[in-house]
Amino acid sequence: MNFYILTLFPEMVSSGLHTSIIGRAVSRELLSIRTINIRDYAFNRHQSVDDYPYGGGAGMLMQAEPVYLAYEAAAEEIRSRRPEAEMEKKPRVVYLSPQGKTFSQRMAEELAEEEDLIFLCGHYEGIDERVLEEIVTDQVSIGDYVLTGGELPAMVMVDTISRLVPGVLHNDISAESESFQENLLEYPQYSRPEVWHGKRVPEVLLSGHHANIQKWKRQQSILRTRERRPDLLEQCSLTEEERAWLKKS
Amino acid sequence: MNFYILTLFPEMVSSGLHTSIIGRAVSRELLSIRTINIRDYAFNRHQSVDDYPYGGGAGMLMQAEPVYLAYEAAAEEIRSRRPEAEMEKKPRVVYLSPQGKTFSQRMAEELAEEEDLIFLCGHYEGIDERVLEEIVTDQVSIGDYVLTGGELPAMVMVDTISRLVPGVLHNDISAESESFQENLLEYPQYSRPEVWHGKRVPEVLLSGHHANIQKWKRQQSILRTRERRPDLLEQCSLTEEERAWLKKS
Repeated sequence: MNFYILTLFPEMVSSGLHTSIIGRAVSRELLSIRTINIRDYAFNRHQSVDDYPYGGGAGMLMQAEPVYLAYEAAAEEIRSRRPEAEMEKKPRVVYLSPQGKTFSQRMAEELAEEEDLIFLCGHYEGIDERVLEEIVTDQVSIGDYVLTGGELPAMVMVDTISRLVPGVLHNDISAESESFQENLLEYPQYSRPEVWHGKRVPEVLLSGHHANIQKWKRQQSILRTRERRPDLLEQCSLTEEERAWLKKS
Repeated sequence: MNFYILTLFPEMVSSGLHTSIIGRAVSRELLSIRTINIRDYAFNRHQSVDDYPYGGGAGMLMQAEPVYLAYEAAAEEIRSRRPEAEMEKKPRVVYLSPQGKTFSQRMAEELAEEEDLIFLCGHYEGIDERVLEEIVTDQVSIGDYVLTGGELPAMVMVDTISRLVPGVLHNDISAESESFQENLLEYPQYSRPEVWHGKRVPEVLLSGHHANIQKWKRQQSILRTRERRPDLLEQCSLTEEERAWLKKS
């Protein structure tokens, strides 16, 4: 899978995405992450990429042309790798914006099916609407809060999507046993020592009794989901027995 | 405002947060961002900070003690700066977790009131529950998706909160005119040139007629919110006139 990130701050994106699991996946060539500096496509000698908005308003806007040329550089590379029959297919371009559709694990799963993804990171007060109309296929927001630019949201999306690419995580069990699988939150976990600051690891986890441990974990997940995210619990498929138990708990 | 970030990947966090607006605010001493490497508090000669979870399961857990000692280093520094009367007050500690309460602009506003904030970034399969119980005051999730670690979410929160600290943005107008103010999305924006790829800037923005421009912007915001985020529109206070107009549009 190939990620292209169009940004004014390429070093921020590269350093943030070359650590740990994602960095390993890049060096194992399971992923490629390429940053394209929009400033390299500035069309004047001052290398400026922004200008005042028409109709007034605070701050500066990123202009259409440099963004478009940076996009074309990525699109050209993608086209050159594709078989001829698919060359006309426009690449998927995600624009990070508080106006976008809210990102979710389901959307990540869908995007992980793509071979190439372009992310466009805005800065200042935003980007000229005309280039967005022309190149963007998906406007996405990572949540209902406002950031200084699109770089961190792009990194969040690349990280989330990368984990779903086969081979990136050490073991497939890991991706499956975690939050949002089946809409249940994760159970509490404990590691050595058995007693820390006077707190003991729950007895059942030391028992070696596999079935009891599994049951305890699932019950803890259900309780925690009810406590913290009741909205998710409604979408869970609990057994009759679990529902009866939950009523009493 | 002082941010402390407890992490296994301090260089990732620092490089991601020292760019652009936030970087400038740090050099102007409006903010301080300190990373504390949890690995520096490993208590064995292999510098390991993780171990297997009790009761089995995939992956490794971060152990309680190194996390606790890293927290104590931050808390100690915070205590040393506080007046004696407040020294007993526990600092606010945010643990980034998909199990947490969903982050929002409102939560950012609330957290921006704090003088000190500690962020705890988990990795691997998570952190021993006992240290979370002992030090964490807020569990926060930036959205319903799973990341490889808590670093990116911590950076997202620091960025969002920092923007709300007085003086960090160039102009206060900027923070006010943007998304989620009044629950309306932003209107489309245009910069030079007047015609780009055959697309013209909307005539009204070139008219110089201030009242018409303001009306157009607000109408575009309302239309866009209805189209993209009808859930937000329900919480908006529209005038009678705007409601009537919206029905016809």
